[in-house]
Amino acid sequence: MNVVYLSGGVGGARLAHGLARTLPADRLTLVVNTGDDLWHWGLRVCPDLDTVMYTLADLAAVERGWGLDGETFHALSFVERYGGETWFQLGDRDLGTHLVRSEWLRAGVRLSEITARLCRGLGVPHPIVPMSEEPCETMIDTDAGTLTFQRWLVEHRAQLDARKVWFRRPDGATETPGSPAVLEALERADLVLIGPSNPYVSIDPILSCRGVRERLGRAPVVAVSPIVQGRAIKGPLARMLETLASAPATPHAIAAHYRPLLSGFVGEEGDELPDELPCLATQTVMTTRADSARLARAVLQFAERLRAGPA
Amino acid sequence: MNVVYLSGGVGGARLAHGLARTLPADRLTLVVNTGDDLWHWGLRVCPDLDTVMYTLADLAAVERGWGLDGETFHALSFVERYGGETWFQLGDRDLGTHLVRSEWLRAGVRLSEITARLCRGLGVPHPIVPMSEEPCETMIDTDAGTLTFQRWLVEHRAQLDARKVWFRRPDGATETPGSPAVLEALERADLVLIGPSNPYVSIDPILSCRGVRERLGRAPVVAVSPIVQGRAIKGPLARMLETLASAPATPHAIAAHYRPLLSGFVGEEGDELPDELPCLATQTVMTTRADSARLARAVLQFAERLRAGPA
Repeated sequence: MNVVYLSGGVGGARLAHGLARTLPADRLTLVVNTGDDLWHWGLRVCPDLDTVMYTLADLAAVERGWGLDGETFHALSFVERYGGETWFQLGDRDLGTHLVRSEWLRAGVRLSEITARLCRGLGVPHPIVPMSEEPCETMIDTDAGTLTFQRWLVEHRAQLDARKVWFRRPDGATETPGSPAVLEALERADLVLIGPSNPYVSIDPILSCRGVRERLGRAPVVAVSPIVQGRAIKGPLARMLETLASAPATPHAIAAHYRPLLSGFVGEEGDELPDELPCLATQTVMTTRADSARLARAVLQFAERLRAGPA
Repeated sequence: MNVVYLSGGVGGARLAHGLARTLPADRLTLVVNTGDDLWHWGLRVCPDLDTVMYTLADLAAVERGWGLDGETFHALSFVERYGGETWFQLGDRDLGTHLVRSEWLRAGVRLSEITARLCRGLGVPHPIVPMSEEPCETMIDTDAGTLTFQRWLVEHRAQLDARKVWFRRPDGATETPGSPAVLEALERADLVLIGPSNPYVSIDPILSCRGVRERLGRAPVVAVSPIVQGRAIKGPLARMLETLASAPATPHAIAAHYRPLLSGFVGEEGDELPDELPCLATQTVMTTRADSARLARAVLQFAERLRAGPA
């Protein structure tokens, strides 16, 4: 079974870890949101790509939710002394990633090839693929103006209500081309999984890429709920559902957001799950690696049953 | 008395430290070689400017001879994992300097203004001025081809004999314009000091800048010998004198190199000093800060006597 997994950062990365421990590298393609990417200190930073990569390499700072475990921030301390920008923090080891990536980007290497090289350097065998080779910025309209995603999330701590989320191409183009590797993987896919990520700012950017939506629907699509017991495990999703969908933070709201793409849905045991879809109720909160592996296996078994058709 | 001090890295920086402890900030301009500067990991690195700045801020790794004291190299460790270039090592705090400088350079800020901002950040009151706002690369011709200075010094450990040293403008221009701040300082100068730096690769780049040579000679010029007891305190100078000047490593060779610019010369007590010039024989090897301050005072007193004319 060829599995394509769509992911944002932390939550998505945890399930990615479980999937990568369950499926061989030639059966799993991890398609990652790059709408959060930014140039910072002259460096290209790809937060979701790096979170997935570091998580798969067992190097992620799991508690902090971003960056590397045991990280130091000495470069930042000097940037601060000089009055440079410090609202977005980059650790020292992490800087190595951004330095190398930025250098390669400036040399004309495509982001997917760069990501593959970085993964090789960290011993990650599973292909991690950026949604597009081209930059595409997730923009948040607020009552105080329009912000890039990281400014909104990190600098303003997501405290300004999001009125609209949209995707901006720096070159003014209307569409972001899906990465060839993503489109290819989707064509070969027997199953598409949507990770427990924020639909608005992690998954929609991927779905907005040209060629992605029309390649869904050939194989079953199963989403894992990022909402558990009325709350988002992490991040501003619960409030975004209220302001953007006028809906309470429930698995229903997530399923409604993705419908009609979905063939199945995975939500937390005990939560009320959509009844118009085949659902799996299981423990979806991942704290340990064992949790991630268990959820990955449960989701894959559920999807297998879906593919086999109604019993 | 307005003093202009021409300097390369380590040796020059040590005397700069003594001068800065002796003269107020509005009486001393430190003019620093930028012929060693390079783009590395996409960052603009200015080794001599930074060595002088870190030394004046009491942050330099004195023993190592470059970079910051107590420095870590975590970013480098990740660059290495990715197969990036590691022949030139940058520490983590030091990276903060290069990140901020590169960002400002890309934003169009002049190198002298950037250097002033960095100095403010580190609490260095004395003006440290790059020899030029424009890039100028010191090139070394060897039997194995032509190398940039850092490749020759660091990557090849100066083991290929230098056949010729020359200065390349990346834009193909024949001359490097001297920084306006340098030319201005030279016009106001009552004394020009040449630090105990390598004449070929630290001082000649400064002297090669348009407008510098013609502004020397209005005030006394005094050089401090970088050769002591037949050896260079640090670096490849002794061998360079043999291959480039066919001369043994002596104070004579240094004085001959700068003549006819010089009004006076400072060399190590016990060394044979040039007899065609007023000379000061004193302890020139600087190990401690007290050594630097003592030598600075001795050099300034000697220069005062020169200015007063023959007794």
